[in-house]
Amino acid sequence: MTGPDETRLARVALARLVEPGHRELGALVRASGPVEALDRVRAGAVSAGLHAAARTRIEGADPIEQAADDLARCDRLGGRLITPEDEEWPSTLEALADISTTDEPHVYPPLCLWARGPHRLATVAERAVAVVGARAATTYGGHVASELGYGLADRGWAVLSGGAYGIDGAAHRGALSADGVTVAVLACGVDTAYPVGHANLFERIAEEGLVLSEWPPGATPQRHRFLVRNRVIAALGGGTVVVEAASRSGARMTARRAHELGRVVMAVPGPITSAMSVGPHELVRDFGARLVVSSAQVIEEVGALGEGIDAEDVPVRSQSWRDELEPRAARILDAVPMRRAKPVERIAADAGLPARDVRRTLPTLMLLGLVEEVVSGYRLTASARVELSTREAAPVPELR
Amino acid sequence: MTGPDETRLARVALARLVEPGHRELGALVRASGPVEALDRVRAGAVSAGLHAAARTRIEGADPIEQAADDLARCDRLGGRLITPEDEEWPSTLEALADISTTDEPHVYPPLCLWARGPHRLATVAERAVAVVGARAATTYGGHVASELGYGLADRGWAVLSGGAYGIDGAAHRGALSADGVTVAVLACGVDTAYPVGHANLFERIAEEGLVLSEWPPGATPQRHRFLVRNRVIAALGGGTVVVEAASRSGARMTARRAHELGRVVMAVPGPITSAMSVGPHELVRDFGARLVVSSAQVIEEVGALGEGIDAEDVPVRSQSWRDELEPRAARILDAVPMRRAKPVERIAADAGLPARDVRRTLPTLMLLGLVEEVVSGYRLTASARVELSTREAAPVPELR
Repeated sequence: MTGPDETRLARVALARLVEPGHRELGALVRASGPVEALDRVRAGAVSAGLHAAARTRIEGADPIEQAADDLARCDRLGGRLITPEDEEWPSTLEALADISTTDEPHVYPPLCLWARGPHRLATVAERAVAVVGARAATTYGGHVASELGYGLADRGWAVLSGGAYGIDGAAHRGALSADGVTVAVLACGVDTAYPVGHANLFERIAEEGLVLSEWPPGATPQRHRFLVRNRVIAALGGGTVVVEAASRSGARMTARRAHELGRVVMAVPGPITSAMSVGPHELVRDFGARLVVSSAQVIEEVGALGEGIDAEDVPVRSQSWRDELEPRAARILDAVPMRRAKPVERIAADAGLPARDVRRTLPTLMLLGLVEEVVSGYRLTASARVELSTREAAPVPELR
Repeated sequence: MTGPDETRLARVALARLVEPGHRELGALVRASGPVEALDRVRAGAVSAGLHAAARTRIEGADPIEQAADDLARCDRLGGRLITPEDEEWPSTLEALADISTTDEPHVYPPLCLWARGPHRLATVAERAVAVVGARAATTYGGHVASELGYGLADRGWAVLSGGAYGIDGAAHRGALSADGVTVAVLACGVDTAYPVGHANLFERIAEEGLVLSEWPPGATPQRHRFLVRNRVIAALGGGTVVVEAASRSGARMTARRAHELGRVVMAVPGPITSAMSVGPHELVRDFGARLVVSSAQVIEEVGALGEGIDAEDVPVRSQSWRDELEPRAARILDAVPMRRAKPVERIAADAGLPARDVRRTLPTLMLLGLVEEVVSGYRLTASARVELSTREAAPVPELR
């Protein structure tokens, strides 16, 4: 007899018996269900490898009793358990099963997630991006992570991160400043503040966002757990942005995982003189990560075409062209027609300048690829039309 | 009767009559030779467009007399004229003919180049990279350009640039500091200091490198000439590095030109908060430019495989891994065999640590992709072998 409570208890018990992400256990649970899987693990009716992975813990206290204690403890702190049987379980995590190999035994989807926070996880995961990076971030990196977190949350995207000092914390805080949703995926219990200096931050995230963990309340962080945890950060959202990271780092591992999962991997550049930007630069160079410099670009990479992009986000290059152009050249450019070419004299009249000046300036505009000559005169090039199209939307006052 | 002197005079005269790079004139010179081309231009026996381009100047002084004056003036300042008939003419410039279109009439190869400096141009062009960027460079950009210039020149690569304030000047100076070769391609005569604050720099380049121009001695810089000139910088070497640039800038145009020419386009990242790094970041994002952070990487991109790369240039990632690893994990990693796997007990013995510690740490090293498990035990992964291969070259003292 397998009731829903029994299934949940079995999942919690299994997650206690074997470190999360175990490939063979995950496959067994998928094939036979959590209850039968637990029975077989406890009876030793599994492969030698899985038996070994669970052995030391089987010899301890009754795992079902422990699981019940975990659930009671979670209840007391206002949290909840989310399992694949629940409607809010995010389908994004299932992709982890596809990339799991025998070489890396701890990549499988979680058996369950402990959660604190008012949001429905599946909904949050639909519009979520991970922002991760070094603990030893620079002031620059902290600033950038905070701006990204703010910009993403402000546009309705959830900011996923690992709750660490440095980039993670800055990204969470940026999202909170925008009154947005941020998700901290921890490598310890959802009631455990690690690092302890982020205790208040986690409390705020538990109130306004989501604090998640694969480990039961009270679990302590252990080094290998951060690496196991990273796969959840990589899988949950649509992409991962690395803001600052040393050459070989946890953030880089998360990026690799995101790449394996078919998620968008992005990296924020920085000064080449900064050791903390070596990781992002390597990701772009060696790994094909997309270079991003703003939350608008992150959304452009991750979002469906056009989603979350509004006119405000479109880079106004025309402005920077103008800065580069002499005032007279900018004035002449404004007078060059979009599509129906005009002769020099008409452009000169429109610009309110002598035809001689226009003739002298047009070659420069042509060399810049902004203006082209056709039979009937001069007009903007196709690329200039695209980039200057804001002119149509918001007409510039006539200069003539 | 067409002697070599007549050919040279005709080239100089034609370059005076029509602004450099003119597609139709270039094609005419290729088809009919400079002397006949000059005759036809002077007689007006050319297309209306080419006739119009030359007209105002034909009406001036005798172009052959002017050309003779130019050559005499160049002689006096110790310079020389280089033409396609000369053995030192660089074949790299000829690629410009292939990318010239009717839309852009001034992209054709130069008809001739004025030069000051002790080096043979064709030889220099074989191992040359352009380093270009904004005049309004930041301290960061100036530092980076100078370091790149030094590093490239120090490895025997010539540094091409435009002699401007900011990035150009820093790149030239860096190359000179390495006692290397640098080439300033000017938009005015090779005896004209523009900007005037670089007068001493140009004198030094004329003594130790090469100062080049398509315009005769005494020619003044004009805005459109910088853009025409940029195509020579883009074509001469194997690639172009943009260090700092505004969104739409001359440096970006040079990069576009280099791309059209099939040259390698590279960009140095910087803080996303800096307006001067917007150009390089756009080049990487929108244009597929290669992100580079060192002269070694520039040479890797531009050079033939392995050329100019020595052991010193190989990034020592193993060092940065170690920094990330706990001391014990680093010690265990050192004990993991390169190829022939060993069981835990042997690794523990080699590391001088209890087998229990090794068993506890190996999963982390495996998650980091550094160690893999095979039938006979544990060994380094293929990627770790490559990155740790310095260990073979310079053995680390045994820790056991």
